[in-house]
Amino acid sequence: MANIKLTIEYEGTNYIGWQKQNKGNSIQGEIEKAIKLVTGENINLIGSGRTDSGVHAKGQVANFITKSKIPEDKFKFALNSKLPRDIAIVDSEKVNENFHARYDALGKRYKYLIYNSQIRSPLYRNFAYHLSYPLDYGEMENAIKFLIGTHDFTSFMASNSNVKSTIRTINDVSLYKKEDLIVFSIEGNGFLYNMVRIIVGTLVDVGRGKIKSSSVPYIISSKNREVSGPTAPPQGLYLEKVYY
Amino acid sequence: MANIKLTIEYEGTNYIGWQKQNKGNSIQGEIEKAIKLVTGENINLIGSGRTDSGVHAKGQVANFITKSKIPEDKFKFALNSKLPRDIAIVDSEKVNENFHARYDALGKRYKYLIYNSQIRSPLYRNFAYHLSYPLDYGEMENAIKFLIGTHDFTSFMASNSNVKSTIRTINDVSLYKKEDLIVFSIEGNGFLYNMVRIIVGTLVDVGRGKIKSSSVPYIISSKNREVSGPTAPPQGLYLEKVYY
Repeated sequence: MANIKLTIEYEGTNYIGWQKQNKGNSIQGEIEKAIKLVTGENINLIGSGRTDSGVHAKGQVANFITKSKIPEDKFKFALNSKLPRDIAIVDSEKVNENFHARYDALGKRYKYLIYNSQIRSPLYRNFAYHLSYPLDYGEMENAIKFLIGTHDFTSFMASNSNVKSTIRTINDVSLYKKEDLIVFSIEGNGFLYNMVRIIVGTLVDVGRGKIKSSSVPYIISSKNREVSGPTAPPQGLYLEKVYY
Repeated sequence: MANIKLTIEYEGTNYIGWQKQNKGNSIQGEIEKAIKLVTGENINLIGSGRTDSGVHAKGQVANFITKSKIPEDKFKFALNSKLPRDIAIVDSEKVNENFHARYDALGKRYKYLIYNSQIRSPLYRNFAYHLSYPLDYGEMENAIKFLIGTHDFTSFMASNSNVKSTIRTINDVSLYKKEDLIVFSIEGNGFLYNMVRIIVGTLVDVGRGKIKSSSVPYIISSKNREVSGPTAPPQGLYLEKVYY
């Protein structure tokens, strides 16, 4: 028996999301099908967490237990030959039998792309959130620093969520601008459901002047989803890395 | 009567190319359809030049003559509301009645993306040429400088082409590397059919050691398509700008 850890890149546009569901194609389902083709086994692939439909990943992590004798680093080539073009295994390695992609994750890094230009971009249509109005980039920069630290992020959690704890620690945030793109990066020990997208939606409200950057500490401390901004759309979001 | 110049961005993946043909959807055809919806006119859209299926554009230029009274800068919004999501008019302006997008073009700039990594990239699958073997980047840098200047580029022209002159002037070339991407840019007064893609195919042969960088002057002077490299695939190519 071997416990194989996969690092996965995908474009989420054409999937219902990471997780298998009754209808529609999922990333998890496609990879499980490829593993079945390669090993003959019906395995249960454990992901580090779900991503929604339209969300992309450069470094999603998953693991599975197999009896296959395929060498650990050969799994990526074997699986890639069976996977659709919008999913690829970028790394495969044997890990300790107890390794669990979800329970053992110590942190994650996400990236979010905003395409800020009067005209929508065909090239970025599935890869960034298009905003046609001007954004006050300086105000957005002022806002992000308040996210750093350990906070109750209830204000940035989808209101129908149900979790044990809403406290998370954000270690690092950054914002940079390159031509028409604004790139937001965030790293923390965990993220609530839709947390990054609600943070981005709030930052956009800051950028357009609906919310002052100085109000962000109040938004956090109010623990109220109704005072933060809208949920930014999925296509701008990338799961960059999972830390173990 | 007004002569309207359009600057166009598109993803070429789902089209047979710029030019209208009997079968399949073309960029030109889609824009002509949008103009018909907006103005009621059956116009003939003149592009700066063709792009092949799968080739993208950030700055394709085209013009058309219209009787419509729509203000020049409003055309982009009117057309964008009718165009598919993978085509957008990024600028529209009224130009001199004699302006002709093809005849008046003084030069063009193209970009070509190579994704150089052992594993294919789902996110770049339609946006870069994937090469899994290592490339000698220094040798590729040495090779590109020989392209500068006025040369007969017959060696870099699709062999079934038929043009008056095969002499073109290249003003600028550059190569840079960013993580797994190699970005090639080239600017000149004109390009023969498939010229950029054959140049890239030749550079890749230089990078993999099949051709020495010092042989590039010989390849140019031999005026023989058989001594240059293969035609690199379309999805890495972007028409960046047309100069007038």
